[in-house]
Amino acid sequence: MVFAYSRRIYLADTDAAGVVYFASLMSICHQAYEESLAMGGISLQDFLADSSVAIPIVHSEMSFFRPIFCGDKITINLTAKQLNKPEFAIAYQIVASEKKLAQGSTRHVCINPKTRIKIPLPENIIQWLKLVAEEDSRGKDNPKIKS
Amino acid sequence: MVFAYSRRIYLADTDAAGVVYFASLMSICHQAYEESLAMGGISLQDFLADSSVAIPIVHSEMSFFRPIFCGDKITINLTAKQLNKPEFAIAYQIVASEKKLAQGSTRHVCINPKTRIKIPLPENIIQWLKLVAEEDSRGKDNPKIKS
Amino acid sequence: MVFAYSRRIYLADTDAAGVVYFASLMSICHQAYEESLAMGGISLQDFLADSSVAIPIVHSEMSFFRPIFCGDKITINLTAKQLNKPEFAIAYQIVASEKKLAQGSTRHVCINPKTRIKIPLPENIIQWLKLVAEEDSRGKDNPKIKS
Amino acid sequence: MVFAYSRRIYLADTDAAGVVYFASLMSICHQAYEESLAMGGISLQDFLADSSVAIPIVHSEMSFFRPIFCGDKITINLTAKQLNKPEFAIAYQIVASEKKLAQGSTRHVCINPKTRIKIPLPENIIQWLKLVAEEDSRGKDNPKIKS
Repeated sequence: MVFAYSRRIYLADTDAAGVVYFASLMSICHQAYEESLAMGGISLQDFLADSSVAIPIVHSEMSFFRPIFCGDKITINLTAKQLNKPEFAIAYQIVASEKKLAQGSTRHVCINPKTRIKIPLPENIIQWLKLVAEEDSRGKDNPKIKS
Repeated sequence: MVFAYSRRIYLADTDAAGVVYFASLMSICHQAYEESLAMGGISLQDFLADSSVAIPIVHSEMSFFRPIFCGDKITINLTAKQLNKPEFAIAYQIVASEKKLAQGSTRHVCINPKTRIKIPLPENIIQWLKLVAEEDSRGKDNPKIKS
Repeated sequence: MVFAYSRRIYLADTDAAGVVYFASLMSICHQAYEESLAMGGISLQDFLADSSVAIPIVHSEMSFFRPIFCGDKITINLTAKQLNKPEFAIAYQIVASEKKLAQGSTRHVCINPKTRIKIPLPENIIQWLKLVAEEDSRGKDNPKIKS
Repeated sequence: MVFAYSRRIYLADTDAAGVVYFASLMSICHQAYEESLAMGGISLQDFLADSSVAIPIVHSEMSFFRPIFCGDKITINLTAKQLNKPEFAIAYQIVASEKKLAQGSTRHVCINPKTRIKIPLPENIIQWLKLVAEEDSRGKDNPKIKS
């Protein structure tokens, strides 16, 4: 399922060039991630209080196609997938009025924050990953392809 | 009418002390102001494009009563009133689960941005001020008080 | 001693109105506070790691006199004073080219973060307060005034 | 020449996970870019005031190797190179105490902001690119290698 998060662009997101500041858009994508976790029943506050596990971002990237202005209503379409036992990736499509404004991704690794050693993702994150998994479009759009 | 804006607290709003960073809460209050302008039909993008008028903040203050945590859902209750021809003030009550977390205010002055001279507030702002005016509670709660 | 912290204004500090975003200036003042703590030998990282004490901001305010632009070099002149056993206040003067751009203040209360009960300020903060105390100019310049 | 920009990590750069927020590090890298422009004699304020040219970021990415804490002193080592007439790329190495904490890059395209059409980079940016160019170590150290 694609998780869609819509949000207005506020003055604080913009800079003196008159458009959204590039790093602010990364932050808005992270808000979409946090909203999708909440939708999956995961409390970020409980997660932060658990000192045995952390899931830091190890890579982020974003491509910017069009300027985004103060007051614009944008939608972040988020999907995620597990890469291996401790890692997952999130993809973000930023759209407005059916135009693609930007796209990005983040990669997250589950660690023990004291030892910094990788550990398997917790069960509630694995369940959340199933909720926001990119659907296998081949199967859906063209069900006969396998037959 | 009190304008109510509800919003989750995101990781970006917090700091390493584990709670919302004080200046982030000022920024969240400004988001409530921007949402109330949108509700009043005022486009901030059009407003910013008009080089003949600007309404900068000349004073802001905030009192913090309780810590606010990542994931919390807070509500900003906003009211405003015109102070004189070029000025208005906004009051913000920040609440969650019927507890008052913080309160603040901003004062705004309408100027010609080139000359920095005060000018009267534009008509659409005056209309918005009527929408979000604090009601005269004396008259409402106790209509006989005047008789 | 007045503690002076100079800093360029970056694009991230500004907004689409073309000037510094009001809440960003509060954040820049807090940077001055952090630099003054470092000058006083106080490690904020150690302080944050100590779960028995926290010194949250309970009030902040700022007045804005002139617009501040991207690329401007500003100086924050900081002084502080202890108000009572658990509390102190910081005053900030924001200047550039001998012009006063803004001024503000924050009030800080020392608490036990678990119980939220006020506790006396730690000794290293009391020493820092002496370093950045506003000098009593009457007493210093004119020591006989009291006799 | 590698341009080095050193800076303390402030509370506002961190989040409730206790370390620097990922998007804040992108913003700190952009500060290094702005400082390098200033070193090259380029006023960002003049640049923003010129409505005939803009150089937005079209791609950004960052890899995070180690956590960065409040109070840490980090250095951004910045180099840049022109990719073609309208484009350049910047590389950032984020280090502290000789350890590599993160690395990232941004790609910038020069456009006419009204038409969004690509235009050649202005001369002062081309001069700045020469200042912060990654040196071709092969050619310099061993000039005969091509012959």
